[in-house]
Amino acid sequence: MNNELILKGERAKKAARALATLRSDVKNNALFAIADGLVAGTDYLLQNNQIDMKNAEEKGMPEAMRDRLLLTEKRVEDMAEGIRQVAALPDPVGEVLGMTKRPNGLLIGKTRVPLGVIGIIFESRPNVTADAAALCVKAGNAVILRGGSEAIHSNLAIAELMRREGEKAGLPEGAIALVEDTARETAVALMRLNGYIDVLIPRGGAGLINAVVKNATVPVIETGTGNCHIYVEQSADLAMAKNIIINAKTSRPSVCNAAETLLADRAIAERFLPGALSDLAKAGVELRGCAETAAIFPAVKAATEEDWATEYSDYILAVKVTDGIDDAIAHITQYGTKHSEAIVTTDYNKSRKFLAEVDAAAVYVNASTRFTDGYEFGFGAEIGISTQKMHARGPMGLTELTTIKYIIYGDGQIR
Amino acid sequence: MNNELILKGERAKKAARALATLRSDVKNNALFAIADGLVAGTDYLLQNNQIDMKNAEEKGMPEAMRDRLLLTEKRVEDMAEGIRQVAALPDPVGEVLGMTKRPNGLLIGKTRVPLGVIGIIFESRPNVTADAAALCVKAGNAVILRGGSEAIHSNLAIAELMRREGEKAGLPEGAIALVEDTARETAVALMRLNGYIDVLIPRGGAGLINAVVKNATVPVIETGTGNCHIYVEQSADLAMAKNIIINAKTSRPSVCNAAETLLADRAIAERFLPGALSDLAKAGVELRGCAETAAIFPAVKAATEEDWATEYSDYILAVKVTDGIDDAIAHITQYGTKHSEAIVTTDYNKSRKFLAEVDAAAVYVNASTRFTDGYEFGFGAEIGISTQKMHARGPMGLTELTTIKYIIYGDGQIR
Repeated sequence: MNNELILKGERAKKAARALATLRSDVKNNALFAIADGLVAGTDYLLQNNQIDMKNAEEKGMPEAMRDRLLLTEKRVEDMAEGIRQVAALPDPVGEVLGMTKRPNGLLIGKTRVPLGVIGIIFESRPNVTADAAALCVKAGNAVILRGGSEAIHSNLAIAELMRREGEKAGLPEGAIALVEDTARETAVALMRLNGYIDVLIPRGGAGLINAVVKNATVPVIETGTGNCHIYVEQSADLAMAKNIIINAKTSRPSVCNAAETLLADRAIAERFLPGALSDLAKAGVELRGCAETAAIFPAVKAATEEDWATEYSDYILAVKVTDGIDDAIAHITQYGTKHSEAIVTTDYNKSRKFLAEVDAAAVYVNASTRFTDGYEFGFGAEIGISTQKMHARGPMGLTELTTIKYIIYGDGQIR
Repeated sequence: MNNELILKGERAKKAARALATLRSDVKNNALFAIADGLVAGTDYLLQNNQIDMKNAEEKGMPEAMRDRLLLTEKRVEDMAEGIRQVAALPDPVGEVLGMTKRPNGLLIGKTRVPLGVIGIIFESRPNVTADAAALCVKAGNAVILRGGSEAIHSNLAIAELMRREGEKAGLPEGAIALVEDTARETAVALMRLNGYIDVLIPRGGAGLINAVVKNATVPVIETGTGNCHIYVEQSADLAMAKNIIINAKTSRPSVCNAAETLLADRAIAERFLPGALSDLAKAGVELRGCAETAAIFPAVKAATEEDWATEYSDYILAVKVTDGIDDAIAHITQYGTKHSEAIVTTDYNKSRKFLAEVDAAAVYVNASTRFTDGYEFGFGAEIGISTQKMHARGPMGLTELTTIKYIIYGDGQIR
């Protein structure tokens, strides 16, 4: 067993017990103190970040990735502001979700309680440290974070300030922990830390998610992969459909709720595709189409089987002509990742059919898939987007970082 | 990969898509038809059960276990009656759990949908086949069952009748499957059938649960182990306390919600323990106590460290004198399995403290832990009792066999 993890796990378990009954105002004040502490410690954070930046440059990390790693005065202020927003959200813990009176007089209720100890494994962006820790603590959980080696100096500095300011303001010792050892085996050991970790949430690319699913023996909430489709049904308002696919593909192609494939019914393909695809091409999108698409709009590359299954996370879009709604739903069922799927239609029955038959975390009628997001859904925060069916599905806010317990009031009932 | 599992997995996935939108009345009629079919096929079931019974005898299976394996006319009728009760329950699928209107006009709602394909690994009692399959199908899920080799002929016969009658009444092919291969490796392969199984629920002893937690790569709902405590706080009504501990220990010692340890405050130990323990002894309970208990009631064996951590599932009770509520909660935190815990008290503050600080699926004031059960909680059915915190906690009914999806109505919104 890994000594660092056992030690941090023991402390986190103890902290979780104290956090579970900590008053909201104490948690909130601690989060405000942490936010102020990060801003006050900006110089210290930037110095440590510079070590990571220098190492990244020496290792030849690409520009775009180095930008994700970089901390600036503005980014530290944003990080603090994010924590203040979490502090301002309502506390989900302690809510009683109804009680029922049984025939024998027992009063049985459900109350919302923290999960306990949450493990977070994440990649590159150091602001995840602050963000994830704040959400976990607000929902009454202790957190053990494990970031990548490329950001270790930044992450350690952030975690140190958060821990110090948090404990000064009343958080129990061990509520926020960061794993210092960045060896791969330590990440695997964290995935197998049964008895200490109640739930593990990986935040990162497909490689990380797969490694967690394969290796973890603790309960996991899978997040991330989104191979999302926009389906333009033949009754669609075609101007609306064009707006939606351009938005879903180009407003932020790197995120999981961006569209990867456009499906268009044969009946409107000749009217819809030329205008929509040429606008997409003008916006810098590379197009890969089926044979029918190519016949209508020759400036597309031929799509392969692999294209239908790929989350590009880039300015690339697969395009397929479909033979009506059943064909479109069959394609989504075969290639989708159950993240976000949208139909554009003016047909009442088709909208109902799509909502009922498509199996995904979020199913849209006449809107962009880009709305699958905790803030856009009105949760005020987001720890990730679950693509599994157990426990949480879709954007996860504070509520999804809690569980329930049954509380039962009796007067001597026996069975 | 295992061919039988892949084939059954493919069929189950297909069936799950059809089941997800199957009308409640079709599902209910299929369940009634299955119940009638089992009763009509009683002779066939008993013949196959006799093969298992004969094998069990030849292998020297203990009497008590053979009784669990035995099917009789009455037990088949009970099995059918259980299925009819499930058919009569309200269908959880399709319920819309509120919708919110966002500032941009999007209407975002949550609707209850089936989990998809549920795997159930269970031991010995063949009625689990009928019971679990009925619950899964009612909640719109396909199910792949894997029972033990000792009951394989009984299980195959039950599954065959259920499948035949179910399909005749409109269930999709593959909705109910039983794994025929009883090799251990096949069970492990089922635990790793990612892409086919959405949730795996083990039903059985600690050995099975541990094997599943260690080996599974599909999402698991842990069930079962219950090291439950009755804590008699010093202000307790001692007659009530005696009733509760006798009920919690002796009404059915083999089940997971039975009490395993009695904690009694020092202030009432001399008044409470002699009467309670002598009644427990008269009821056939072997007592294992701490030194203080032995000083008060000499007819106890000395409890070891192991006793505090053991789920006896038998007429054995550990007894410990505690130094007030903090000591009792610390003991429960250290040795409990987060299943069911009870305090007997007349003190308002102590009751609130116990409910808040004890981390378990069900926390009781002045009632027996034996009520932790889907039927007693008013769910009308139970697939098991979850002892994990993710997805479901405590007794799991039909609702816990579902998940949600977000449905979003727009009129062209982009982000």
